[in-house]
Amino acid sequence: MKKDFQAFVNKYKMILDQKLFTYVEDLHAPRILKDAMAYSLKAGGKRIRPLLLYAVLDAFENAPELGAEVACAIEMIHTYSLIHDDLPAMDNDDYRRGMPTNHKIYGEDMAILAGDGLLTYSFFVVANCTDLTFEKRVRLIQEIAAAAGPEGMVAGQVLDMEAEGKSIDIQELEQIHLNKTGRMIVASLLCGAIIAEVPEEIQKKLRMFGTYLGLAFQIQDDILDKVGETKKIGKPVGSDVENKKSTYVTLTSVETAKTYLLDTYQNAVEILDTCNLSQSYLKNICDWIANRSN
Amino acid sequence: MKKDFQAFVNKYKMILDQKLFTYVEDLHAPRILKDAMAYSLKAGGKRIRPLLLYAVLDAFENAPELGAEVACAIEMIHTYSLIHDDLPAMDNDDYRRGMPTNHKIYGEDMAILAGDGLLTYSFFVVANCTDLTFEKRVRLIQEIAAAAGPEGMVAGQVLDMEAEGKSIDIQELEQIHLNKTGRMIVASLLCGAIIAEVPEEIQKKLRMFGTYLGLAFQIQDDILDKVGETKKIGKPVGSDVENKKSTYVTLTSVETAKTYLLDTYQNAVEILDTCNLSQSYLKNICDWIANRSN
Repeated sequence: MKKDFQAFVNKYKMILDQKLFTYVEDLHAPRILKDAMAYSLKAGGKRIRPLLLYAVLDAFENAPELGAEVACAIEMIHTYSLIHDDLPAMDNDDYRRGMPTNHKIYGEDMAILAGDGLLTYSFFVVANCTDLTFEKRVRLIQEIAAAAGPEGMVAGQVLDMEAEGKSIDIQELEQIHLNKTGRMIVASLLCGAIIAEVPEEIQKKLRMFGTYLGLAFQIQDDILDKVGETKKIGKPVGSDVENKKSTYVTLTSVETAKTYLLDTYQNAVEILDTCNLSQSYLKNICDWIANRSN
Repeated sequence: MKKDFQAFVNKYKMILDQKLFTYVEDLHAPRILKDAMAYSLKAGGKRIRPLLLYAVLDAFENAPELGAEVACAIEMIHTYSLIHDDLPAMDNDDYRRGMPTNHKIYGEDMAILAGDGLLTYSFFVVANCTDLTFEKRVRLIQEIAAAAGPEGMVAGQVLDMEAEGKSIDIQELEQIHLNKTGRMIVASLLCGAIIAEVPEEIQKKLRMFGTYLGLAFQIQDDILDKVGETKKIGKPVGSDVENKKSTYVTLTSVETAKTYLLDTYQNAVEILDTCNLSQSYLKNICDWIANRSN
């Protein structure tokens, strides 16, 4: 754990926001498309994925700035996935983080295209990281595309859509989240590891750490939907029950989910210990995810 | 022009079909997602983009097989764009090439995800072309992502959606097609050029050639919508007029469009001449595009 965590978060969130804004603003693209892309990028959020990448670089004594472009690419992919997930044909959400969803403002056609644009542009951004060797850029794209694609995040969303209205068990729920959330969280860590040339053995441990972290994130999400405050979480409390969504809380109880969260958190923390990373920002992010109220 | 063009087309279409099928079948992904991705990949079509890549490799005395993976990636991107363009929120098409569109079979949610999956996986495929150097893989991804993204194909679809129901002029129509069709046709040629290490000067000419070729393709498309046979083109003749779509034919006349097609074709052919490529399959593809009946 590092003492100046909040300063770290503030600094790199600001760099990220500025770079994301510049990327979109500088595009030679129709104004309406740029606006739609920027709208969801600006909607903010916790920026956990880019911060994980920055934290790995810091932990292995690389300047976090080295990953600034890749951090943007990862956030573009995360944002595209939210835009598409919110569509009427998918989760049909009108609000996200307390703001109207992309298609409520720009229409379904533009929301689909804004998502397509962000996804495609993210690979352009990584391929054009001229400060990194060609080999590193290829390894980054392999990692990101595998995590975001039909064997990763897209598969997770498919499983999620298929589970709708059905009764699933906790293992099936875990499969959804491992793919839908976990894979891109792992990829964010691994992108940092690729840039910083972290040894293969530690990379493997970071993958396990990211898997636990992703699960912890999701369990806390489910708990907050039951016991959180509407204002803080940006959507009505209890919406999971209302939407007949299977969650860690609906499948067990708030108490069981809390125990499960604690176990998962402890597994993540133990891995950090074995990598001598307990004094890094990764530990702070871990604590933040498990204790967050939004 | 080369004599055995039909054999070339047959051979590499077959290789492409087989490889595309294997790529999707081998995915560790939900069955329904694989089926939805495979459905539109199998729907066939002319495979012009991959054939252009193969033709460049052949023209510069590289084994076309060297580009087999990249050819698949390009066709995946083309297929994703068709699936998303056909969606109810976009062009709302029920049929393509005489077959029900993806969302008519698999639903809108799965069609969106099949498109997202194909787009993402295409970059994974290129990043994993282990027969090519890291530098070539990066250059290929730069080229493809630029052409397919918010400054290319996505921009073209945005302009197309915005033009709906409005009166646009021939220059605006051209802008739509340069982005929507032209950019990926150019990228297909350039991918061949990158793999074959074609000199920069010839690469520039191939870009111009591809731009004319893309326009010629689109003009012929518009002409066929007016004078073609429903059975051959796979959609009702006259659907552009019915949908109040601006085309080269609706903005001028069949006769003027035919003159414009001939001019564009001749510009393309002249560039091939200046590159000593008149005896290549690129010339055959050029003739095919200008004279096709479907």
